[in-house]
Order: sequence, then C-alpha cells, then structure tokens
Amino acid sequence: MHAEIISIGTELLMGETVDTNSSYLGAELAKLGIGLRWATKVGDDPDLLFEVLDRAWRRSDVTLTTGGLGPTSDDLTRETTARVLDEEMVVQDELLEHLKGLFAGRGTPMPDTNIKQATLIQSADAIPNPLGTAPGWWVERGGSILVAMPGPPRELTRMWTCEVAPRLKQHNPGVAIVTRTLKTFGISEGGLDQMLTPLFQAANPNLGIYSKEDGIHLRAIATAETEDEARTLIEPMEAEIRRIIGDDAIWGEDDETAISQVASLLTGRRQTLGIMECFTGGLLASNLADAPRAAEFLKGSLVVNGAGVLAAQGVDARVVEEFGPASAEVAEAMAEAARRRFDADVGIGVTGLVTDPTPTSGPLGTSHIGFSIDGRTASTSGRYPTQRLRIRGRAVTHTLLELIQFLRRS
Amino acid sequence: MHAEIISIGTELLMGETVDTNSSYLGAELAKLGIGLRWATKVGDDPDLLFEVLDRAWRRSDVTLTTGGLGPTSDDLTRETTARVLDEEMVVQDELLEHLKGLFAGRGTPMPDTNIKQATLIQSADAIPNPLGTAPGWWVERGGSILVAMPGPPRELTRMWTCEVAPRLKQHNPGVAIVTRTLKTFGISEGGLDQMLTPLFQAANPNLGIYSKEDGIHLRAIATAETEDEARTLIEPMEAEIRRIIGDDAIWGEDDETAISQVASLLTGRRQTLGIMECFTGGLLASNLADAPRAAEFLKGSLVVNGAGVLAAQGVDARVVEEFGPASAEVAEAMAEAARRRFDADVGIGVTGLVTDPTPTSGPLGTSHIGFSIDGRTASTSGRYPTQRLRIRGRAVTHTLLELIQFLRRS
Repeated sequence: MHAEIISIGTELLMGETVDTNSSYLGAELAKLGIGLRWATKVGDDPDLLFEVLDRAWRRSDVTLTTGGLGPTSDDLTRETTARVLDEEMVVQDELLEHLKGLFAGRGTPMPDTNIKQATLIQSADAIPNPLGTAPGWWVERGGSILVAMPGPPRELTRMWTCEVAPRLKQHNPGVAIVTRTLKTFGISEGGLDQMLTPLFQAANPNLGIYSKEDGIHLRAIATAETEDEARTLIEPMEAEIRRIIGDDAIWGEDDETAISQVASLLTGRRQTLGIMECFTGGLLASNLADAPRAAEFLKGSLVVNGAGVLAAQGVDARVVEEFGPASAEVAEAMAEAARRRFDADVGIGVTGLVTDPTPTSGPLGTSHIGFSIDGRTASTSGRYPTQRLRIRGRAVTHTLLELIQFLRRS
Repeated sequence: MHAEIISIGTELLMGETVDTNSSYLGAELAKLGIGLRWATKVGDDPDLLFEVLDRAWRRSDVTLTTGGLGPTSDDLTRETTARVLDEEMVVQDELLEHLKGLFAGRGTPMPDTNIKQATLIQSADAIPNPLGTAPGWWVERGGSILVAMPGPPRELTRMWTCEVAPRLKQHNPGVAIVTRTLKTFGISEGGLDQMLTPLFQAANPNLGIYSKEDGIHLRAIATAETEDEARTLIEPMEAEIRRIIGDDAIWGEDDETAISQVASLLTGRRQTLGIMECFTGGLLASNLADAPRAAEFLKGSLVVNGAGVLAAQGVDARVVEEFGPASAEVAEAMAEAARRRFDADVGIGVTGLVTDPTPTSGPLGTSHIGFSIDGRTASTSGRYPTQRLRIRGRAVTHTLLELIQFLRRS
C-alpha cells in the first residue's frame, strides 16, 4: 500500500507558511507501514489542483490532502475532488445543522459562504473536526482512498490521530511496524558504525544510524504481521547493541529528549536547579521551562550579558580577572553562584564567545559549561561551527547532555 | 516564466527533516516575478525521481532541485538529470583537483565515492559551492533551465543568493517586482479591511492583508518593467495607507521585526534594558540576545520560576501578597526590580498563568506585562488561546510590541 500527500494553498508556494503537515503525516504513515512516494505542494488554482489531484487519485492507493477546506472561494479541495471523481456535491442537513450550531455558539449568524463546508459527494463520509468548522472527507471508491483534511496543524493532528489513522490501519492489516531508537553520546558515528557492523547487515530489523544535534541515534525498524512479532524481532537486536556499546553510552530512547531526561532525573531525585547563563542568553532556561514538571525543579536563571555584570551577581571578580570571562573557571564559579542565588541543589553556569565568521565559514562558538552540586564542581567546553542563531541552540543541547552525565555520576 | 521545485531525499518523506528549502525558494522566486506552480518532495528512488524530474523538465520553464548531490550511492540527482536529458556524465579535471584540494586541507585523502561530485553533463555548468563539497549544476537546453542545488540550507541559501538568483534574473528581464509591507498594531483585521476598502480593489499594486503573530500586515505588490517604475506605482499607495490609518498604527516595515525595532529604539536612545520574567521563562531574554547590537542595550534577565522566589529577588512581598503573583501590580513591581537589579534605564516584568485546557480547546495563557522607565511604570495584559509551547512565544511578541509603544511614548 502506498500513499501520496497533497498540501494545498498558495501561501505554501509563496513561502509564507512552511508545510509541516506533510512531514508530520510522512512520519505517521511510516508507523502504519504505508510507503509515501510523493508529497506535492500546489496553490489555490482550480486547474493545477485538478491535475495534481487527478494524477494522485489514478496512481496512488491512498491520497491525503491538507488545506483548502475553508469557506472562501479560494478553498477548492471539495469542488476539485468532486470534479476528479465526477460526482455531485450535496448539502447534508445534519452537517449544516451542526455548523449553524457552532456559529450560534459564537453569537453570530453563519455566512452563506460556509454552506459548502456541509456538503459531501456520494463516495464520501464526513470526518468530524471538533476543533474547527471544516469536517474532513473520507472518499473510497474502486479500492482507492482519498482523505481530505484541514490545513491548520492543530485540527489536522487531531483528525489524523483520532479518526484517519485508526481507519487506515484497518485497510492495511497484517503490517505492523515497531521501531526502537537509542540515543547515544560519547562515541563517534564512525566508531558506532564499526562496532555494530554485523547488525547493519540485517534486513529485518533494519538498523539505521543518524547524526542528530543531540548525538548519534541508532534506529531499528522491524516489520511483521503483528506488533508482538515485530517486537520479538527487535528485542534481541536492542540487547545486542546495549551489550556492545554499553548502557552508559545511551542517554535516551525513542521520544525521550535531553529536556525530558533532565526533568526526570531531577524530579526523581527531588533536586532543584539554578542557572546563570551568559552565552545562551536565556535559551537554556526557556527550554527547561517547557519540560514536564518544570515548576518542581527549575528555580530560575540569571541571564547576564557581559562580564562586567558577573561580579555584581555573585561571581568572584578575581576569578573573572584571572581567567577571563569565557573560561572554565568562570563557568564553575557561575554554577556555584547560581546554586547559592536560587538556593538550589544543582547549579549550572554557561559562558563563552562567538568568534566572527571568516569568508568561507560561519561564526564559531566556544562555550564553557560549569556544574555545581553539593560542593563538587566540574566543567566542560564545546565548539559549534554553525550559523550564529543556532550556536545558542547547540550550546543548550550540549549543556543538557553533559548535565545528564554529570547527574548520573553524582 | 514559471517554475517548479523538487526536494529530493527519503528523509524528507519520512518526516525526519522538514523541507524548509522549498519555502525559502518559493518566497525568493516571487521576488523575481517567477511563478511557482508545484513543489514536490520525492525520495532517493531512481525510478520515482526520474519520473518526477522528467515531468518537470518537460512542463516547466525552470526546475529547481535541492538535495541528492552528496557522494553516496543514495545521492541520485546528477545521475537522474543525466538520464532525463540523455547525456553522459564526464569527470572534469578542474573540479576534481578542487575537490581533492578540499580533502587535502582537512588532512584526509578523498574517497573514490566523491569523484562523481566532480562530473558534469554537456548541457551543464558547475555552480561554485564554497560551503561544501558538492558544486551545483546549471543545465540549459532548448529554452528550459534546470538548477540542481545542495540540500543543506546554509549551502543552498548561499548558492541561491550569490549564483542562481542573479543568473535567473537575467533570464526573466522586463519583470520587476517591488513589495512594501507595513506591520500594524491596534486596529483589527476587519477594521483595516473597512478603512482601506477602495485600495484593495486596485490590481497593480495589489494590496493584501495578513494576520500574523506580530499583528496585521498590509502588503502591496507592484509589477512593472523596471524597479523604478514599480516603486513609482507603490509609493502613492503607501502614502494613502499611512494617511488613512495613521503612522502610530504602524510599528515596522518590510523585514523589520519586533526585535529589530526594540533594538534600534534602545540603541538610538542609548538606553539599556533589564528584565524579570516569570511567564516567558527566559524566552524574552533569549530572543533579545539575538538582536543586532544586543550587547549594547541588554543588561540581563532574571528568570524566576514561582512566586515564592519573587520576594527574594527584590519584588515587594506585600504587593505579591495583596494582588497575587499573576497581576498587573506584580508585573510593574518586577519591572522596577529588574531596572534596579541590572542598573538599567528600562525595566520589563512579565508574569502570568497558563490555565489547563478544556477538552475542546487548548490551554489559555494570561500574561501581565509591566514596564518601568525613569520612575514611570505602566502595564498591560494579554490572553493567548493557543498550544502550550506557543504561549510563551506569543507573550514574548506581545511584550515586544507593547515595549515599542511604551518607548515611543516615553
């Protein structure tokens, strides 16, 4: 079974909106074992849209569309689908009553332009959309499926998760995909590649290696008739990877992030965190503030801009003087000052420098990261050759991964 | 002249990488007056890629591809382009010497797999890529153009700006597009729509209205034979808009952002800024830290998590007690405390609450934003019905827009 995605809207072609829907759906289709062959963006042009939809309907088992379900004359997904299938759009009383009810709830009468959101063609069912006025269409004829979903990501995600994915799964029985991702640190991509050479040759589970901003990921994908069988295939491979590279080299699994791991380590140990950040400019605190149960462990962060301010914020002026503001010693002194200032169990200090770019390279960032816990301090440093705006992000991820190691050892 | 974009790579279909290149190129093509009709993502599959490239070459004046120019057997853009044009790939000595030089500079010998990065077909020129090992291909035959560019956004952006865009412009003479965007605050979308009704009816310049996170944008697009003529068309419309809605309702133009406006207001007045943020968790500071000349005006931010910490950081405990931590009064007290603590000219305080979501809505955030300057304080508040992770971002934008107004009045 293979699929095709069509993202509809002139704003997508003009670059005003980035099409994240097709990336989301691509990852979701893979989980259902449905191969995605093409994803096309097309504007609100009736003839171009017809051509793209018509080709998809003829060549793909499943066509997913997003966008173009609004009430205006620019929203053409329903009309064009009806034209491709050569069926007539008919207003459904039940859908119309529901829609009028939504507008009544907002205290405004429903404009006539919205009536088309209450239509269906004969081969289509309506798909409920509790988050918006546009129901989706599930179209099925002659073994082909076309699913029209709304463009706003919040509405799309809900409709996919609650309605479309479960129904598609029934159409693709006997294919269960189980994946297992192990997120590593401390071993290079080449090193992992060598250590695991025999495992990369297996066809099922298939093992992939991916260099990500938060380290090297190993991902095993097993395909079988049932989830249990797929899991039985994947478990020995995971055990073998863990035996070869060691549990210490693995910082997380599957959907776990550096943020969620730090949060679970700190809340599990009932420890709190205070931060003083110079290099990351508040980004470390704002990322941690989004963590689950952040209120329980994150006491605060002092974002300081410039070395002159450090002494006024409790960092020993002599250390700044002797080693310079961008140094491991100052990072440790900042970590201690942060721990004291926020009355926290663990302190982090981040300092560093961004060097101006040369003509052929981007700017280079060097950070110094200090940790402090119960009187013990440690520090590390990182270099990030990347775009200026991404240096802070790289430094934040680096800090979080080092914190996981530091906490595990403390 | 119309264009088509093909983004190549299985990782794009699997949703592992979001295709931002085609959004970037879509916006850039519009500036050149070249209409984009389709943008397709396709994986590293030789036959599917051939089919997509072949159709593009036959139907589009300009085909832009990104990705698939790496050295591995998965990178198929060159091979497939050669197949579509039925031409042979030939190693170019000059390109090969350059490539070997790059590897020598890194101190490693060049693997044989990289040799294909030094090939061309007869209809192609090499496009320099100083940021990577893969040169692009400029292919021109029978009036059609195909440009193959690398996938990494940094390499793509440079190649587009310095090499491809200027060359395409020469192929599309006599079309000059000038746009003018005015970014507003204080008037609703419906209000602007009514005030400017006659202007929306003009065809050239065409006026559009867009609701963005940082307010309502008005964008005029003029098309003419030369840039000067297009500018002459657009200027009277801009003057008319400014006359009708008033300069006070406009906070920025074109590429100006709330961040860049705050930075230019503060550096222009040689004023410094101190922040105390509870609700935005460090995001306000980290956004401002990326501003031009941030070191000159941003003294720092104290990110506090929880009302218990406020008093310890210089906020009057009685104000917190009397009005509650999420109140306008506390926001103003925080702004004053931030100004004192960082010895700054202007202080900002942000506090607030996120209310848990109901089954049919996302969470609701309410912020209180306080400003302090020279003993004068002011405050405002905002409500953001949106996804939890985006509430902080909305509050940061709101704070920046209000700060622009506050500074203009001070």
